[in-house]
Amino acid sequence: MKDRKLLMIPGPIEFTPEVLRAMGMPTTSHVAPNFIEVFGQALERLRQVFLCPSGQPFAIAGSGTLAMDIAAVNLVEPGDKALVVNTGYFSDRFAAILECYGAAVTQVRAPAVGDVPALEEVEAALKGGGYKLMTVTHVDTSTAVAADVKGLTALGRKYGVLVVVDGVCAVAGEEMRQEEWGIDLALTASQKAIGVPPGLALVVAGPRAIDAFRNRKTPVANYYADWTQWLLIMEGYEARQPRYFGTPAVNLIWALNVSLGQILDEGMDARFARHRRLSEAFKAAVNALGMKQVPVSPDKRATTLTAPYYPDGVDRTVLGHIKEAGVILAGGLHPAIKDQYFRIGHMGVVSASDILATVGAIEKGLAQVGYKFEAGVGLAAAQAVLTRQ
Amino acid sequence: MKDRKLLMIPGPIEFTPEVLRAMGMPTTSHVAPNFIEVFGQALERLRQVFLCPSGQPFAIAGSGTLAMDIAAVNLVEPGDKALVVNTGYFSDRFAAILECYGAAVTQVRAPAVGDVPALEEVEAALKGGGYKLMTVTHVDTSTAVAADVKGLTALGRKYGVLVVVDGVCAVAGEEMRQEEWGIDLALTASQKAIGVPPGLALVVAGPRAIDAFRNRKTPVANYYADWTQWLLIMEGYEARQPRYFGTPAVNLIWALNVSLGQILDEGMDARFARHRRLSEAFKAAVNALGMKQVPVSPDKRATTLTAPYYPDGVDRTVLGHIKEAGVILAGGLHPAIKDQYFRIGHMGVVSASDILATVGAIEKGLAQVGYKFEAGVGLAAAQAVLTRQ
Repeated sequence: MKDRKLLMIPGPIEFTPEVLRAMGMPTTSHVAPNFIEVFGQALERLRQVFLCPSGQPFAIAGSGTLAMDIAAVNLVEPGDKALVVNTGYFSDRFAAILECYGAAVTQVRAPAVGDVPALEEVEAALKGGGYKLMTVTHVDTSTAVAADVKGLTALGRKYGVLVVVDGVCAVAGEEMRQEEWGIDLALTASQKAIGVPPGLALVVAGPRAIDAFRNRKTPVANYYADWTQWLLIMEGYEARQPRYFGTPAVNLIWALNVSLGQILDEGMDARFARHRRLSEAFKAAVNALGMKQVPVSPDKRATTLTAPYYPDGVDRTVLGHIKEAGVILAGGLHPAIKDQYFRIGHMGVVSASDILATVGAIEKGLAQVGYKFEAGVGLAAAQAVLTRQ
Repeated sequence: MKDRKLLMIPGPIEFTPEVLRAMGMPTTSHVAPNFIEVFGQALERLRQVFLCPSGQPFAIAGSGTLAMDIAAVNLVEPGDKALVVNTGYFSDRFAAILECYGAAVTQVRAPAVGDVPALEEVEAALKGGGYKLMTVTHVDTSTAVAADVKGLTALGRKYGVLVVVDGVCAVAGEEMRQEEWGIDLALTASQKAIGVPPGLALVVAGPRAIDAFRNRKTPVANYYADWTQWLLIMEGYEARQPRYFGTPAVNLIWALNVSLGQILDEGMDARFARHRRLSEAFKAAVNALGMKQVPVSPDKRATTLTAPYYPDGVDRTVLGHIKEAGVILAGGLHPAIKDQYFRIGHMGVVSASDILATVGAIEKGLAQVGYKFEAGVGLAAAQAVLTRQ
């Protein structure tokens, strides 16, 4: 019996053996020739994974929240107007961060938890005018709600605002074509679909974002997040001529380069398709087991995670049984419904076997708490999708 | 012939196999019971390693510069007066960070590179009055200059200012007794004498620092560095009741707990004594080889690193030969003398064997560039100290 349990939460996710080996390698100097090459290559690969050939990548020690901080503090000046397309917990956070740096924030809110604001409402707000930027949470990790990033970005372009996408639970899993869609800045954290243990904030800024930064009238009000410093560092490593600002998180950068290589070996289109297929299979199982989902309709569901409501008579104690059956899932996070639902991450190296193992463990857990359903009905529903031509 | 070279730079340093194994372990959830225990224990151990039983520890994903950012932004309000005891590059940086957050900074500067300001000068400045805090760079990584932290802190206490010690190249190597000496906040980065790969900012704040934060009249002008968030997180993990703000750098925290355990197994007094002995041995070798050091007198020399000037007729090409002989050293960093000296880190798990290997490689390198000296004279000088009763 394997002791190790499958980690199916919305990050940290499961990492490949090659990535973990890179984490545990003897640490090199941050100016060693082999590290310079690896950091330079990782930056080039970030550009490819974000599908943003003209973008400027940044890989900086910190959490995903630091990536949001970096976006806000470098693009916003006190008094600038910002529009937050609010789809949950992490949109609230972006609004708080923007306000921390002096932005005048307007929010277009979803009509209910699990929903997203209509494009028309966002357009009405943009028409009101005067916004410097808008933020969109691609996937709200708290609710598994996915925003229509392509449609929202098109609106942003139409009204000439900078479009910032929080892709923390999305990049390298959920389809996002940064340059083609016109996104000005996208960000994520290493421990999500990018497939590297937590500790790196990852940002790719397009030319309009960099211009907005260069045309600032006020200095950036944050030392550690300031592009004034980091631009030189990232440009330097990419030119294989390192400069010093802070010591890079050496082992994490080695691991990042390995993971980005594996992602690009799969190919972005194949990767998006795999994530869609596995998500659909898992959601079919959830449905067959009689569980509703937090996102109010199928087109608002993320492909990187699923957030089912507990069925009647079941509560979070079922997660303990599922864990005993070998799979670790996450509880609810959104304050309004925290105890009514749970979350399953299925991104990164996740496979059809992982999906089946997870559905199997959920069936076992549900049965143990007395929930009535036809045994195997979830597995059959998942398998039908997984084996579809 | 071993391929692996000895890394003797002022960070990242060599890490123990146990620490590297923790880095490469499959990543746990940040709310897994075993991770909660490990994070809680690491926080308790930080308090012991900093010798600050009443302190509040913080371990946050980021570089050492983030630790400085955290200190400045949480303690300073716009208009507060801050005194920087300037001993080099990293003191300049602390001044820049304090100014970024609105402090009115006064600097007491060393009379020359390699020197430290006299206590009398610092006292004269403090007498002028009105400072909320003073910062001291314990060891300036750019010059190997050590400040008299104990003496400076006593002055800070006398004049009622908060004393902030940048211990990036010092904590867990250089003697520092945070609580006994009266230091209000000490900080470091993981990749120095703490012995963990780069990626963690580590801060221990004493009661007066926490009070100053709680009594702020203005909000903290930085989202990611704000103690308003992190205090709850650190208190939560230490109570073994995790709360969420940002995903902790899970693997780095596991590695941190391993390294702190190894540090405490050695004991802080034994550890300080080992660092002193090895430093003295290495500096004796440098002296015997006819090289001067950047710090202007023995009492101003760090024990965690050494910064020798190249002897006449030798330049930085010697570092390539030393590397070929198996040891990686660092070049100069201080802009005023960058090309005239080099740097050797000897902290953390460093042993007498490492010291001898490093001296041997330096002798080999010096001979190869044609420098004249009695072969073995450096090794003999080091060995005399290492074998002294």
